[in-house]
Amino acid sequence: MHVVIPLFPRYTTLDAIGPYEVLRFVPDAEITFAAVEKDPVPADSGALAITDTTPLDGIETCDIVVVPGGPGTRAENKQLVDWLKMIHPKTRWTTSVCTGALVLGSAGLLNGIDAATHWNPKVIERLQELGARYVPDRVVVNEKHRIVTSAGVSAGIDMALSLAARITDPVTAKAIQLAIQYDPKPPFDSGSPEKATEAVKERALELLGSATA
Amino acid sequence: MHVVIPLFPRYTTLDAIGPYEVLRFVPDAEITFAAVEKDPVPADSGALAITDTTPLDGIETCDIVVVPGGPGTRAENKQLVDWLKMIHPKTRWTTSVCTGALVLGSAGLLNGIDAATHWNPKVIERLQELGARYVPDRVVVNEKHRIVTSAGVSAGIDMALSLAARITDPVTAKAIQLAIQYDPKPPFDSGSPEKATEAVKERALELLGSATA
Repeated sequence: MHVVIPLFPRYTTLDAIGPYEVLRFVPDAEITFAAVEKDPVPADSGALAITDTTPLDGIETCDIVVVPGGPGTRAENKQLVDWLKMIHPKTRWTTSVCTGALVLGSAGLLNGIDAATHWNPKVIERLQELGARYVPDRVVVNEKHRIVTSAGVSAGIDMALSLAARITDPVTAKAIQLAIQYDPKPPFDSGSPEKATEAVKERALELLGSATA
Repeated sequence: MHVVIPLFPRYTTLDAIGPYEVLRFVPDAEITFAAVEKDPVPADSGALAITDTTPLDGIETCDIVVVPGGPGTRAENKQLVDWLKMIHPKTRWTTSVCTGALVLGSAGLLNGIDAATHWNPKVIERLQELGARYVPDRVVVNEKHRIVTSAGVSAGIDMALSLAARITDPVTAKAIQLAIQYDPKPPFDSGSPEKATEAVKERALELLGSATA
């Protein structure tokens, strides 16, 4: 089971690492971080970069693709988009976390289908321009198109557990959840725009802007 | 607000990246990944390493320390332990994720106090040998000792949000939760040993063993 996580400049680290930490427990999973440009690939914050990557253009087939989000998804990403068009017909599942859905959309993979992404209104608007139907769900599975999209950042953990359940047995999928002790207890109930106040939403958009500027 | 995340060989990536992704949204936070040995520091899986680190022995003061867990916590980690003994009297909060508690324990910081860690019985036994009282909570805050410990892997996200609430205002802390859309919906209710079946627990220990062997 070959899982490829393509990294492009200004990807969001938790978008990539959440699913990575789940999927690496899948028996026989081999995970490749693939660099679109040179290695190491700088994250959105500039504070860290992941090294030990494989060049994306050397990967001809794989079973699962996980495209992270991040401010870098607003760039053209031609190489990644072309690679997704080439690889998707051969994958078992092509997936995205957060604004990674915009990259899937740019590759024409979300045309006319339901998709999740970050709740940021500008992101939703862009997703819709790319032909997808935005759904405010945490994880959206399209079995027919073999596409899974997920909501912002931390939603990649839920997405990867759903994926693990589809590619392993129920005991193994539950065991992975237990291995990473994913029994979440957020200190507030403010993790979605439906639950947050207007002041919290405004502040979140401010923080997102300054963190990714 | 200077946050230091020390990385040692065979740390678990999500232990470090979960809190990083939360704390980087704290206004004025400056986050340093600090390498105990040479840069880049290899993760537990061998599949990735984080680069752009700062040498740990050059850091004389900081506000917050987040020690990740991972199989590397079973090594002696003398340099990290000595650094923790030196730095803790100067920090605002010294914290750990998962088996990072064993490193805090080795530095004598958990002597006689409550602490959380990964649910693995061998880890709990080791924590108790180091003088801590194991508590099966997700996040344990000791205000008097300025210590916060948390349960396995993904618990670092809850821990960092609790911490963010203490060092910012309530609106900002909730906005950080919303920015990373932390509105978790695990596909199973199997994230703690109290909720998992015996078969799932056995399988999780098997996966943890093979993933970190």
